[in-house]
Amino acid sequence: MCSVIGLFNVPEAAKYAYFGLFSLQHRGQEAAGIASSDGEKIYITKGRGLVTQVFDETKLTKLIGSSAVGHTRYSTAGEDSVLDAQPIFARYDLGQIAVVHNGNLTNAKQVRRELIKEGAIFQTFMDTENLIHLIARSHKEHLYDRIIEALQQIEGAYSLILLSRKKMFAVRDPYGFRPLSMAKLGDGWVVASETCAFDLIGAEYVRDIRPGELVVFEEGKEPRSIQVFEPTPHKCIFEYIYFARPDSNIFGKNVYKLRKAMGRELAKEYPVEADMVVPVPDSGVASAIGYSEESGIPFELGIIRNHYVGRTFIEPTQAIRDLKVKMKLNPIKNVIKGKRLVVIDDSIVRGTTSKKIVNILKDFGAKEVHMRISAPPTTGPCYYGVDTPTKEELISSRYSVEETRKYIGADTLAYLSIDGLLRSVGNDLSYCMACFDGNYPVPLKE
Amino acid sequence: MCSVIGLFNVPEAAKYAYFGLFSLQHRGQEAAGIASSDGEKIYITKGRGLVTQVFDETKLTKLIGSSAVGHTRYSTAGEDSVLDAQPIFARYDLGQIAVVHNGNLTNAKQVRRELIKEGAIFQTFMDTENLIHLIARSHKEHLYDRIIEALQQIEGAYSLILLSRKKMFAVRDPYGFRPLSMAKLGDGWVVASETCAFDLIGAEYVRDIRPGELVVFEEGKEPRSIQVFEPTPHKCIFEYIYFARPDSNIFGKNVYKLRKAMGRELAKEYPVEADMVVPVPDSGVASAIGYSEESGIPFELGIIRNHYVGRTFIEPTQAIRDLKVKMKLNPIKNVIKGKRLVVIDDSIVRGTTSKKIVNILKDFGAKEVHMRISAPPTTGPCYYGVDTPTKEELISSRYSVEETRKYIGADTLAYLSIDGLLRSVGNDLSYCMACFDGNYPVPLKE
Amino acid sequence: MCSVIGLFNVPEAAKYAYFGLFSLQHRGQEAAGIASSDGEKIYITKGRGLVTQVFDETKLTKLIGSSAVGHTRYSTAGEDSVLDAQPIFARYDLGQIAVVHNGNLTNAKQVRRELIKEGAIFQTFMDTENLIHLIARSHKEHLYDRIIEALQQIEGAYSLILLSRKKMFAVRDPYGFRPLSMAKLGDGWVVASETCAFDLIGAEYVRDIRPGELVVFEEGKEPRSIQVFEPTPHKCIFEYIYFARPDSNIFGKNVYKLRKAMGRELAKEYPVEADMVVPVPDSGVASAIGYSEESGIPFELGIIRNHYVGRTFIEPTQAIRDLKVKMKLNPIKNVIKGKRLVVIDDSIVRGTTSKKIVNILKDFGAKEVHMRISAPPTTGPCYYGVDTPTKEELISSRYSVEETRKYIGADTLAYLSIDGLLRSVGNDLSYCMACFDGNYPVPLKE
Amino acid sequence: MCSVIGLFNVPEAAKYAYFGLFSLQHRGQEAAGIASSDGEKIYITKGRGLVTQVFDETKLTKLIGSSAVGHTRYSTAGEDSVLDAQPIFARYDLGQIAVVHNGNLTNAKQVRRELIKEGAIFQTFMDTENLIHLIARSHKEHLYDRIIEALQQIEGAYSLILLSRKKMFAVRDPYGFRPLSMAKLGDGWVVASETCAFDLIGAEYVRDIRPGELVVFEEGKEPRSIQVFEPTPHKCIFEYIYFARPDSNIFGKNVYKLRKAMGRELAKEYPVEADMVVPVPDSGVASAIGYSEESGIPFELGIIRNHYVGRTFIEPTQAIRDLKVKMKLNPIKNVIKGKRLVVIDDSIVRGTTSKKIVNILKDFGAKEVHMRISAPPTTGPCYYGVDTPTKEELISSRYSVEETRKYIGADTLAYLSIDGLLRSVGNDLSYCMACFDGNYPVPLKE
Ligand SMILES: Nc1ncnc2c1ncn2[C@@H]1O[C@H](COP(=O)(O)OP(=O)(O)O)[C@@H](O)[C@H]1O
Ligand SMILES: Nc1ncnc2c1ncn2[C@@H]1O[C@H](COP(=O)(O)OP(=O)(O)O)[C@@H](O)[C@H]1O
Ligand SMILES: Nc1ncnc2c1ncn2[C@@H]1O[C@H](COP(=O)(O)OP(=O)(O)O)[C@@H](O)[C@H]1O
Ligand SMILES: Nc1ncnc2c1ncn2[C@@H]1O[C@H](COP(=O)(O)OP(=O)(O)O)[C@@H](O)[C@H]1O
Ligand code: SF4
Ligand code: SF4
Ligand code: SF4
Ligand code: SF4
Ligand SMILES: [Mg+2]
Ligand SMILES: [Mg+2]
Ligand SMILES: [Mg+2]
Ligand SMILES: [Mg+2]
Repeated sequence: MCSVIGLFNVPEAAKYAYFGLFSLQHRGQEAAGIASSDGEKIYITKGRGLVTQVFDETKLTKLIGSSAVGHTRYSTAGEDSVLDAQPIFARYDLGQIAVVHNGNLTNAKQVRRELIKEGAIFQTFMDTENLIHLIARSHKEHLYDRIIEALQQIEGAYSLILLSRKKMFAVRDPYGFRPLSMAKLGDGWVVASETCAFDLIGAEYVRDIRPGELVVFEEGKEPRSIQVFEPTPHKCIFEYIYFARPDSNIFGKNVYKLRKAMGRELAKEYPVEADMVVPVPDSGVASAIGYSEESGIPFELGIIRNHYVGRTFIEPTQAIRDLKVKMKLNPIKNVIKGKRLVVIDDSIVRGTTSKKIVNILKDFGAKEVHMRISAPPTTGPCYYGVDTPTKEELISSRYSVEETRKYIGADTLAYLSIDGLLRSVGNDLSYCMACFDGNYPVPLKE
Repeated sequence: MCSVIGLFNVPEAAKYAYFGLFSLQHRGQEAAGIASSDGEKIYITKGRGLVTQVFDETKLTKLIGSSAVGHTRYSTAGEDSVLDAQPIFARYDLGQIAVVHNGNLTNAKQVRRELIKEGAIFQTFMDTENLIHLIARSHKEHLYDRIIEALQQIEGAYSLILLSRKKMFAVRDPYGFRPLSMAKLGDGWVVASETCAFDLIGAEYVRDIRPGELVVFEEGKEPRSIQVFEPTPHKCIFEYIYFARPDSNIFGKNVYKLRKAMGRELAKEYPVEADMVVPVPDSGVASAIGYSEESGIPFELGIIRNHYVGRTFIEPTQAIRDLKVKMKLNPIKNVIKGKRLVVIDDSIVRGTTSKKIVNILKDFGAKEVHMRISAPPTTGPCYYGVDTPTKEELISSRYSVEETRKYIGADTLAYLSIDGLLRSVGNDLSYCMACFDGNYPVPLKE
Repeated sequence: MCSVIGLFNVPEAAKYAYFGLFSLQHRGQEAAGIASSDGEKIYITKGRGLVTQVFDETKLTKLIGSSAVGHTRYSTAGEDSVLDAQPIFARYDLGQIAVVHNGNLTNAKQVRRELIKEGAIFQTFMDTENLIHLIARSHKEHLYDRIIEALQQIEGAYSLILLSRKKMFAVRDPYGFRPLSMAKLGDGWVVASETCAFDLIGAEYVRDIRPGELVVFEEGKEPRSIQVFEPTPHKCIFEYIYFARPDSNIFGKNVYKLRKAMGRELAKEYPVEADMVVPVPDSGVASAIGYSEESGIPFELGIIRNHYVGRTFIEPTQAIRDLKVKMKLNPIKNVIKGKRLVVIDDSIVRGTTSKKIVNILKDFGAKEVHMRISAPPTTGPCYYGVDTPTKEELISSRYSVEETRKYIGADTLAYLSIDGLLRSVGNDLSYCMACFDGNYPVPLKE
Repeated sequence: MCSVIGLFNVPEAAKYAYFGLFSLQHRGQEAAGIASSDGEKIYITKGRGLVTQVFDETKLTKLIGSSAVGHTRYSTAGEDSVLDAQPIFARYDLGQIAVVHNGNLTNAKQVRRELIKEGAIFQTFMDTENLIHLIARSHKEHLYDRIIEALQQIEGAYSLILLSRKKMFAVRDPYGFRPLSMAKLGDGWVVASETCAFDLIGAEYVRDIRPGELVVFEEGKEPRSIQVFEPTPHKCIFEYIYFARPDSNIFGKNVYKLRKAMGRELAKEYPVEADMVVPVPDSGVASAIGYSEESGIPFELGIIRNHYVGRTFIEPTQAIRDLKVKMKLNPIKNVIKGKRLVVIDDSIVRGTTSKKIVNILKDFGAKEVHMRISAPPTTGPCYYGVDTPTKEELISSRYSVEETRKYIGADTLAYLSIDGLLRSVGNDLSYCMACFDGNYPVPLKE
């Protein structure tokens, strides 16, 4: 997963991009980058690490101009991920361009093969490089037309922002897999993956970019909208379940509220007699509040999430059991001891973490552990930009619910049904749920 | 504030100290250090920064031996705080010693003046150096007797762990201001500021070190307890209100539970008609749950705390209003808009942060903001180890509650009463509440 | 200026590349990089800084395989020079390729314009990217033929090494501007900019790659040589004067010896009565020894070069006169006081440093300063890979020798004549001397 | 070995200290530190690494005031050398003090034992801590008298600078083992280990501090001199041979000139028929010039010293023979091949490096290698501040000259005689030569 942000006609745009990316950091911690334009030239800095690690005052100050695009990157398969950070910058026949991309192209390999056949060279391992080649090879006179021509050749998931020296372009694929919203900031505009970015920088949310829509930002003009593709919305429901920040509105709805609704549905579908509802923090908190409200079982923050959770740490000893999970989460012994717990989390991926959590809870004296998951079992991988493991690694692709329950050691285990999930989102059928129901709207082309 | 940990007769003691300190990191982020002993020699590493920044595998591996003491440090007044990190290590007539200390000596200046008069030199800005001088100057033959002689000369707050090459000593001042607990780990022992450290490393809590007690750890013997001073318990109630981790037991009681109790009392004392109870996370969460349960007003996690809160960041723009607070906390607009909120926090120090929070909430459309504080107004500084600002800077030392309310812009504002606070802790009178009621159990000697 | 190295059929090739680059560090301190191949895949790491800063054990260990190419880079015009480090790596229709390049293409802009017209994108600011595009766009079946086709389209200076998954190619432009030598290491081969790299890694020098020659390295075969272009040798004479290490053989001759010869010629052409010959270290040392031998005036190391010269330092005070020069060079007062000095350096570029040196020498009591330069006046820039400043900045393009003498404050000033320089190199006419005589063998195309 | 510097009544004293230490870096690369005083308070920063690594603009700017002392440290036996960097800072009964020290106290252990017996604590592993304790424990009223009292209790080698808030004190032990010179800078004063520091910062050398002399610097007064001890000069002759920079004057004489004289004497004592004189750079350069002048055999810089020699590097391969030496030194094959060489170095310590150098020279085709050492065989360790290895490790304490010759593989080997050395320094008998002749002027007390 990744995040993108774009600013147009905003003085010191790169600094706003920096703060926006700070609030989007949860969508990608591996690498970060910003490109800016002063109308004459594009400036760029990118690197490995958190936004606060890649940038300092000096570096930001060099990114001059009143437009900018930024990116945080989740993971990279490449060898030397400095090369695989975004924005991708290139000089081509119309000048200079910088591109940021959230999503995965399903025909990336195929397009790359064809481009390579025509003599293109690829210097990174990112799908996005395809797009720039397609734009550069188009024979249209205007960037605008070239972008459209290029979009017609790519398939899959993309929320894209393109920056030229004088313009900015924001696009969403026809399915609208990944979110992309638009806001006003002073006389200028902001486009970002999640609305929490607008809150931090004080921008006023206007609307979402629509599936299949291209918005063009140009100086002295209002943003121009082109519906490039007929929309066939399949918005990623997993953004609500886990990925997005609870304080963001995604696809027009608030994440926290939907999570609570999922918790409520879960309580209706899988009630249980218990003493308290305990979330696995932080992803389980909102649905646990919902479950508690619906069931009347008191909500307790019975597991504490360490403030200093980082991405890397020493493991100098095998002697401490379940060390990694314990460094992140610690149950409150005094609260859970002798109690029957409903434990709420958003998903079970491989099952190993859930197994350890149940184990620690039991060690600390929990009488019963009733695990409730606020989503259906994850049975398939995502081809649209979420880094789920392979099908083989997903416990629910191999194990029944009962087998999973045994494996993780819970007294009972239940998942929200697909219908329950749909009810939570207002019975709106415009969502992708492929990793839960196997209905992949776009096939992956090898 | 600081944290201390000590391990005795535990193989790879320094590694356990490392993980213990990781879980005590919230008690001090400025500096960290560990000293270990293999029975022949004391080894030490300390430095500025978080525990995970100061140590790496190589450094930990050099800290050999089966006993160790560790420390995290909150803030330093000194110039070059490398010098002001703990443990303090010294060679003296009985050999080598390393000391870690949580608390503040109230007669530190006086003792230092006298020691200096006798020719002592002070190389750091830490109170703790006094103690080592007193031990070194004692004419007693045994370290044990010297420690007692030294303790008789110092006043104030101290939870101390001393490591010699072959023994370890843990002491708490007669008031028991700061916590210090003891646990079993395999054949060995652990002493730590909070019990959450035991949870992480898998140690079994045994009991608290008592106010005025000295416990001696020696190989091949059971820990030996000496009641050096008649206990006159004045345990810091602020540990419950704010400082300690909710998953710790402090002074024998669970922090989370007591915070909930404070929230309940607050609801009884200062009810209000409202749509939801919203904590200022994380310190306000437990008391908000208590307030919600007591009042029946639904609990909502209406403000989100950013996962990437760090200690330093760029401030390249004045243009973003309330930037610092917003980088840490973001209200969920959709949840609070048009709503009457009871907002719960643990304390108001200078008032500036609360003012900004109320401001943002109103900006985001909150209809009413009823601020409720789960502690009495902080009217005085702490002399016993908590870094509250000077009396002048404390808003409650200058402003009435009504004046404070106006300043922060809330619709109503109320603090838990001293009686309410006492009720929350079971009407136990053995607590220090000096920063709330002005009854300082030990005077500060200049 | 830059350096290149390539290894073929050498176990742990990347490690040898690392040490080779260490000995070539003087040819470029800005960035360094190594790419290796294990026959299946190309691995790459590059970054800003010295070779020892960019690489550590972990990074080297990941560069597996028995072939490798490496590069050190002098300066970068680009914004974010991480992107402008070499090797350049690309995937294209024949697979993967990594390229390192020393030199400057004189038709780079023109070729780039054409490539861009055909739809190519440029992600770096390096000439070398041209070459990869040309190779990728060629319709020949074999990489070998494509390289030749590509070479036919580029002009200027290039000593290149190309690494594919299974082969390595080394080429020198028809003029042979930049050096490139070849050596045997065990069963494998090494190609490098200077022979000092062979000395360090223990390789046996075989011969120079010839101007216009392409050498192909393939497993199980002897290196194959193709004379792609008729050679018209114009080897850079400035390599002898300043750039190369004195312990290297360049274009078949030893640098130290030729420098001494220049010093001798200088003594013949511009003798002067003096007490001692003093080099500006280190570039002036060898020619000073030659001048001393020829003139009979004793050689004294009267100026000491600081061992800790670095590329960046604090300049916190204006108060210290000539600080930058003094941090690098310090005359021995006791040695030079009251003495008539012949001071030898390799060149005067802008004149500012020489002015400061003369100034300090006079300050320290030198009676007379006779500046002797072991090369003719630098009157023009280099288009072939040496980073001389623009014509305007070159003092000798604007000032006569006498004017320069006055500017730098020397008592006399003389430069080696062009004839003298030619005599030093054995009256061999196969050298480029364009920056001295204006006869540019290849024009720069804008 | 270490270096010290002190500035008094010099605006921005710490910045001058920084540059002074930069020029004294060769006397210690492990740690560096500066303390300054503004008359009211002492400020200090110290840390591990080179001067340029420990300090940056921000840190220097905090060291306010017009007096300062600085230190670079060679090696540390201690565990965590941050603690063992200088200046040592302490608060004591007369206020605050910072001390820097070059040398070793021969009765350090004894004094420490006694101080410890009296109750002192030692927080570092540095001798210098003794001195501060002695000063602090003195009952004299004035710092001045206390320093004298303290000096009377310590033995061995010390060039010391002490900084109080208002004064500065510079002292040299009665033997004058280590150098210490004094210069004028504007209205203020500088004291430093070597005069090269004066050159860089533009200070005017005045005189050396005399053995046994104490100089007191006080505002508004001329420096006051007290001859605390009867001088019995035993100045370290090894400063001339190896340690000091050739551009420094040490004990009133220029190092470069004396090294040349040693080379001349060596040529007289041990002439040899040969084609060229080649120094092992840089320590052998000056004596090689002397040898060449005396013998008439031409001087050639036949071995090149790498500019990028650092203190730490990767050793990822055993395959490269003599890697460490080769990374520092490379002979010029073309120059030495088939030649009879006189190779000059300053000393042979363990013999391993010399063995490798001879080996490489032979490998590169040298016909004969005649090793000449510009000092007598090092037969004993130094107790006065030079970090020679133990007697057992010194090759000359176990092997005869002939045995050493065989071990290093030279054709002939000869050392300057003690008489020759004396002649070089003008038959002045006021030098320590203990590591050569065993006449230790002060015994080491365990
Ligand atoms: N590692 C931790 N994990 C969870 N909670 C913690 C941790 N450390 C401290 N806390 C709790 O978090 C609160 C402090 O966090 P918060 O309120 O977000 O910050 P602030 O100190 O700025 O008010 C304290 O009340 C403390 O009990
Ligand atoms: N900056 C943030 N502040 C608060 N919550 C966040 C932030 N970023 C992500 N989240 C939420 O936190 C959850 C992920 O945190 P958590 O469950 O603790 O970690 P994990 O990803 O290991 O399960 C997600 O559901 C996401 O909505
Ligand atoms: N900054 C400096 N600039 C020039 N010469 C120096 C400097 N520092 C020390 N020296 C001289 O260099 C010699 C040490 O360098 P060298 O012989 O190359 O290293 P090593 O200590 O390994 O023998 C010493 O004799 C010293 O006088
Ligand atoms: N690693 C090295 N070891 C020894 N000499 C070198 C090395 N690298 C470059 N040189 C020589 O040093 C000279 C450059 O050093 P110097 O004159 O001190 O610096 P500058 O480039 O500032 O003039 C060049 O002439 C080069 O031949
Ligand atoms: S497959 Fe799952 S994660 Fe991927 S877009 Fe669809 S719902 Fe989202
Ligand atoms: S004064 Fe306040 S913070 Fe200090 S110990 Fe007493 S209750 Fe705790
Ligand atoms: S112009 Fe000068 S520097 Fe450039 S290649 Fe020719 S001789 Fe060398
Ligand atoms: S023993 Fe040697 S190194 Fe030490 S002071 Fe005497 S001459 Fe110098
Ligand atoms: Mg989670
Ligand atoms: Mg808080
Ligand atoms: Mg030079
Ligand atoms: Mg040497």
